[in-house]
Amino acid sequence: MSKALPTRADNYSQWYQDLVVKADLAENSAVRGCMVIKPYGYAIWEKMQAILDKMFKDTGHSNAYFPLFIPKSFFAKEASHVEGFAKECAVVTHYRLKNDGKGGIMVDPDAKLEEELIVRPTSETIIWNTYRGWIESYRDLPLLINQWANVVRWEMRTRLFLRTAEFLWQEGHTAHATAEEAIEETRRMLDVYSEFAEKTLAIPVLKGVKTANERFAGALDTYCIEALMQDGKALQAGTSHFLGQNFAKAFDVQFTNREGKKEFVWATSWGVSTRLMGALIMAHSDDQGLVLPPKLAPTQVVIVPIYKGDDQLKLITATVDKIITELKAKNISVKYDDRDTHKPGWKFSEYELKGIPVRIAIGPRDLENGTVEVARRDTKEKSVMQLTDLSIKIEHLLEQIQDNIYRRASDFRETHTFKADSYDEFKAKLDEGGFVMAHWDGTTETELKIKDETKATIRCIPINNKQESGKCIYTGNPSTQRVVFARSY
Amino acid sequence: MSKALPTRADNYSQWYQDLVVKADLAENSAVRGCMVIKPYGYAIWEKMQAILDKMFKDTGHSNAYFPLFIPKSFFAKEASHVEGFAKECAVVTHYRLKNDGKGGIMVDPDAKLEEELIVRPTSETIIWNTYRGWIESYRDLPLLINQWANVVRWEMRTRLFLRTAEFLWQEGHTAHATAEEAIEETRRMLDVYSEFAEKTLAIPVLKGVKTANERFAGALDTYCIEALMQDGKALQAGTSHFLGQNFAKAFDVQFTNREGKKEFVWATSWGVSTRLMGALIMAHSDDQGLVLPPKLAPTQVVIVPIYKGDDQLKLITATVDKIITELKAKNISVKYDDRDTHKPGWKFSEYELKGIPVRIAIGPRDLENGTVEVARRDTKEKSVMQLTDLSIKIEHLLEQIQDNIYRRASDFRETHTFKADSYDEFKAKLDEGGFVMAHWDGTTETELKIKDETKATIRCIPINNKQESGKCIYTGNPSTQRVVFARSY
Repeated sequence: MSKALPTRADNYSQWYQDLVVKADLAENSAVRGCMVIKPYGYAIWEKMQAILDKMFKDTGHSNAYFPLFIPKSFFAKEASHVEGFAKECAVVTHYRLKNDGKGGIMVDPDAKLEEELIVRPTSETIIWNTYRGWIESYRDLPLLINQWANVVRWEMRTRLFLRTAEFLWQEGHTAHATAEEAIEETRRMLDVYSEFAEKTLAIPVLKGVKTANERFAGALDTYCIEALMQDGKALQAGTSHFLGQNFAKAFDVQFTNREGKKEFVWATSWGVSTRLMGALIMAHSDDQGLVLPPKLAPTQVVIVPIYKGDDQLKLITATVDKIITELKAKNISVKYDDRDTHKPGWKFSEYELKGIPVRIAIGPRDLENGTVEVARRDTKEKSVMQLTDLSIKIEHLLEQIQDNIYRRASDFRETHTFKADSYDEFKAKLDEGGFVMAHWDGTTETELKIKDETKATIRCIPINNKQESGKCIYTGNPSTQRVVFARSY
Repeated sequence: MSKALPTRADNYSQWYQDLVVKADLAENSAVRGCMVIKPYGYAIWEKMQAILDKMFKDTGHSNAYFPLFIPKSFFAKEASHVEGFAKECAVVTHYRLKNDGKGGIMVDPDAKLEEELIVRPTSETIIWNTYRGWIESYRDLPLLINQWANVVRWEMRTRLFLRTAEFLWQEGHTAHATAEEAIEETRRMLDVYSEFAEKTLAIPVLKGVKTANERFAGALDTYCIEALMQDGKALQAGTSHFLGQNFAKAFDVQFTNREGKKEFVWATSWGVSTRLMGALIMAHSDDQGLVLPPKLAPTQVVIVPIYKGDDQLKLITATVDKIITELKAKNISVKYDDRDTHKPGWKFSEYELKGIPVRIAIGPRDLENGTVEVARRDTKEKSVMQLTDLSIKIEHLLEQIQDNIYRRASDFRETHTFKADSYDEFKAKLDEGGFVMAHWDGTTETELKIKDETKATIRCIPINNKQESGKCIYTGNPSTQRVVFARSY
């Protein structure tokens, strides 16, 4: 291990960037804005995928795969979609290379595409163009499809996991016979996301709806889950859109209803991405490194032997082998690090950096006493445990850690959620960092002025928001509810 | 269901294309050469992925993710790689769209990339450029990494699954300290592929090595598995390449060995793709539709009630519920089709088309007798089975079907593998369809002439090939072994 991380207090942004690289999660690539997701980072992403994929299937969805490329003209078909989106895109214009006669290669000018292709920034257009052929009658509905894919948005300022030119995500695209059903689906998937965030990522989230200004281009309503990071900034962790009949109309997708009449189909789309990796890291980790919730840790328990000489190691290993067998029988993933190339202290730091939830150390005295030393990553507490029923104790400990990480993040959010009743108070609270609940007059104009002056945006209008009369902190105009402001990623 | 499939005998090629579409596996998209993989097709691909992924992990590999885009200059770095590859590629030249002022959008001419980016046709270059930062000493080796990804090769003549502009695949890229280790890895992954083909796809494959002419661009040796389709054409189902130090030298990837000296790293790469879907379909299916091996069937058993009126249906459903519970307890995937919108005959045809391995029909008389009618898809045999221990019988039946499909494909291959000792005989056997084992003088010149005159290529030189002296069927020059020729996909 090279030099230590900066502390969060000193330089949060640098702490994050360094942590992502040092913990072997990801790194920048030779291609501007594109990241390489390293094996350790990808193993965490795979766990997220597996859990989400099961939740999608349990709610009736199937996976499919649609083309990476989208004809340029498709984007122009849904007016608000192209207006609000699809500008910073990777554009394919040619389909062949040739030797340049100087030992290199060049793009063949004769191989120009008739119509340029856009590398998908999102797939509503190509998917709704396809659905036209799949939907004829109400019997074909609902159509509940999800895609796991890579997408590209040519972001100018990128940051590993949080904002990259290429990222991995899933995008659900569903088709329904009625608006009610589509809205129900939109809300169902929002609930799936919030359950995943809270139970798996151990991150509490606000569920809400976006203002018109923050809505997805082409949506009638955008629902979101918003999480709070340790620097007091918000992070949008997932969105679920009610698209109305916009894409069905743009791509002429109609169905024959039970009365034999043609109607346009109702749509939703919803997605989460590798951005969740950023949320996971920023919500829980500390100055020593990652803190991973056990449900997502590729290795949940690491065992480090403390020994002098091969004879001691052999005796320790014999006991460790039994521990490993017991832990594996409980589906606990465990690694035994008996490398002689590194000292125990080095290993302890390394596994703290990597966020392994539980570390077990075992030395000759432990063998005599029938004990091990167990250290938990979240609190750094150590305890001595008897070998008897160790796997049961570890299983409980992992559950406790999962709960504790969530509770800690909840406590943080609670102490960083403020009410503000004046613009001065509002700005002061924003500077402290956190969610600020304030009255707003409901206009995009005010929203944009506040954003311009404070860099804060309305993260959402919470679902089942408390209604109370008040005055807009900016204009003083009447308001019926507080909305959630924050600076954000 | 619309009109029936063409028969294989009448028009094999049309039979294949129609089957892929009618069985809801895939379809052509609005983007030339790119396919949409529909939910049913994708569910089969997901099963393949899950099984292969476990095999890769069991042999020590981890997944990671590398950028979709590769700087153009990277391709020129490994001379033979660019020479033999990377010509028909999608090229990204711009990164922004803008409104064209006429309600449409256009590519922003001001947003031209300094260096064009190639949509990956394969990832050796970007990965080896990355490995330079990951490998310092022998302690970092071997590096055993796999990537699941989409790739693009701008094929002019495309066919669903078999040859598409975009396809899905996995690509393993490993780095080793010695040539021996790298060769061992190349062979190990070839064995993984052949085991997967035979045990899971139920397709017998020849394991062999490619001739210099058919080698992967940049490889020292390309190993492959070759399968035989029902029309007597060969299909390359997977490749594993020993890349020597070519990419390490091109991207300057050196490691310090145990003696403290710098050496270039040894490489392998290996991959299989959604092409396997094509192999699966063409190897087993018949004129009525798909025949899926039970290990890959998304639904292994379908149950169809035969009834008049709701009372009968209720009684049948009560029994079916018990059957379903028993089958699920054995991890058998089962679907109960009690829709009243379609007749049993329609359902039978539909599930034959979809290749569901086992169909259970149950009517009032079955209820009285405590029986069901069981039809297997592979042989179309029907039998009456007692309900007692039905799930055990079905479990055995699924195993029998898996074995039978494999045996049938093996028998086909056996009866379609010929020896030819003269060029006339060779051509006659090629016209019959199948693998033709013939002597060849070992020169690329002869190989290309034979290909030119007969459209047959050398599929491989089998591993542990029998050595025997003979004369080249084309030139009469001496030869020490027969090689495997065939026309191919």
